[in-house]
Amino acid sequence: MHKIKQSTQNELARVQSLIKKELASEKIIQDIYEYIFNSEGKKTRALISLLASQSRNISGSGAPMASIYGNRRRIELASIIELLHTATLVHDDVVDDSNLRRGEKSVNQVWNNSYSVLMGDFIYSKAFILMMKLNQELILKELAKATNDIAKGEIIQLGLFKNNDSITLQNLLKVSYLKTGRLFEASAKTGAMLANRSNDEIKYFGLLGKSLGIAFQIQDDILDYEAMQLNTGKPALKDFREGKITFPLFYAMQNASNTDREFLLGYLGKEKLSKTTQRKIYDIVKMDKANQQTNALLEKYLQGSKKQLTKLNDHSCYDEMLNLISFLKIRKK
Amino acid sequence: MHKIKQSTQNELARVQSLIKKELASEKIIQDIYEYIFNSEGKKTRALISLLASQSRNISGSGAPMASIYGNRRRIELASIIELLHTATLVHDDVVDDSNLRRGEKSVNQVWNNSYSVLMGDFIYSKAFILMMKLNQELILKELAKATNDIAKGEIIQLGLFKNNDSITLQNLLKVSYLKTGRLFEASAKTGAMLANRSNDEIKYFGLLGKSLGIAFQIQDDILDYEAMQLNTGKPALKDFREGKITFPLFYAMQNASNTDREFLLGYLGKEKLSKTTQRKIYDIVKMDKANQQTNALLEKYLQGSKKQLTKLNDHSCYDEMLNLISFLKIRKK
Repeated sequence: MHKIKQSTQNELARVQSLIKKELASEKIIQDIYEYIFNSEGKKTRALISLLASQSRNISGSGAPMASIYGNRRRIELASIIELLHTATLVHDDVVDDSNLRRGEKSVNQVWNNSYSVLMGDFIYSKAFILMMKLNQELILKELAKATNDIAKGEIIQLGLFKNNDSITLQNLLKVSYLKTGRLFEASAKTGAMLANRSNDEIKYFGLLGKSLGIAFQIQDDILDYEAMQLNTGKPALKDFREGKITFPLFYAMQNASNTDREFLLGYLGKEKLSKTTQRKIYDIVKMDKANQQTNALLEKYLQGSKKQLTKLNDHSCYDEMLNLISFLKIRKK
Repeated sequence: MHKIKQSTQNELARVQSLIKKELASEKIIQDIYEYIFNSEGKKTRALISLLASQSRNISGSGAPMASIYGNRRRIELASIIELLHTATLVHDDVVDDSNLRRGEKSVNQVWNNSYSVLMGDFIYSKAFILMMKLNQELILKELAKATNDIAKGEIIQLGLFKNNDSITLQNLLKVSYLKTGRLFEASAKTGAMLANRSNDEIKYFGLLGKSLGIAFQIQDDILDYEAMQLNTGKPALKDFREGKITFPLFYAMQNASNTDREFLLGYLGKEKLSKTTQRKIYDIVKMDKANQQTNALLEKYLQGSKKQLTKLNDHSCYDEMLNLISFLKIRKK
């Protein structure tokens, strides 16, 4: 994990315990909750929201230190965002699983899917209840729209992967924005809204979040291949085995020889891949030119977020946000 | 369909077209949407909301005729409620792993579970966006809480059916309230809230909806067995084959001989049942005493809703609501 200020770490811990408190009602829900949240995530979105909602400027001449009341609301907003994100993760398990499953329906899997769907719904609606309590019209609207855009992005993505010919860089970027960038954008924007920042600042935070989220997705796509080499905690080539054409594969397909391209297409979407095949897929995807193009795209979006951050250089979160952007590039999970 | 006033029918048609307009964005979403809403449901919840939100009293001495503006908001609220309900239906298909919905193939059969999960999320969040536009704090809170309670009810239900011993009448009623009665209650309550009714009237409408929703669920459970005899558009003994102990089966288990009880438990949750076995299950469940107890329970909740309606006897919806309550008892689908 990258260096996070102690005060911000404390805030993230408060987010974790608020979420825990909100979800603990029925025994069964508590059990599933424990399971989901046992593997504590990075809470990147909550962190972005907490940073953007700081109400102090570095100069100290701006708004006064956030009141304890204001701080509680910041924790609430960050928790809401983390809950929304968790709900999408829980539902994604069903979405990705069913691609792999292909008609095989063991009772066990059906039960798991049932719980995933309902638990996702439970967490979503819990987030909306907390939003109502926050009672800030603009923030509510932004988060409701973001949630809708995420679902839209994932539906478009499913359609894309059914028809490889329709995959263009533009389509991939659109999907990455909707399914990942959109919530990063909303986290930053609503944080700034909560701190009563100016319209300009809200805009800069939004653009920063959007770029950072797309960069995050590109890096995620890269890590799916790098899992071959690194201990990322994820199985390697998961995207590839699910038939997903992500940025690295997209560039590889463009640059590969006909033989290599046919090799890739032949194995795309196959669950079982021998070690030798995995190795060959990795080698084709990591070929110089494709690799450079993927990295250049990542760099472009990271720079895009840094550019927005320079416009926020008197904001108290400046250093921490810069750390986060730099960390995203070198993160291994 | 039971007799619905022409003016109310027109309003239901406006609900249908508003939903259509709101969901039409991406091509793929439109396709799935067309599919879901082609098999038009009864829109019982939208109807309840429309009736409760009428702003006129029979005497005519109360509030003036609803303005066109007020009417638009009534259509919006009814559409939101119908969208929330549809989202739960689409997700239920994954949960139950069902093949048919309203006699048609369900979304997860035509596309797959992935689409069902994401389309459900898309519809949910669309409903929340529309709620934000409605911008009525109390209505928002009630609907967010209802959505959460529905998910909670279904999660509790999954747990119940894993352990038959934990099934009591009280538990079954709790689940029926949460998964079905809760949205009926919210439909009636928020309708009355939108029409600026008194706190007492809002309360009566809420209790009416709650009782009616539980009655609706009991009748649904009965129809699952009656599908053996009737053309309900649903496959017969679907609940039984999914391992669900519903009201009719609960009473049958209590009254059956040990041999019959073991017979039922032996087949409960089995997907494939011969015609002879189905017939025998039906005969045990429809035995005099069990059948009478189920019907008495249904009657109790129908009477409960009528009792609340008598307190609303100067409301312009009185006759139509009475029709609806009477219809629910004789409905065949």
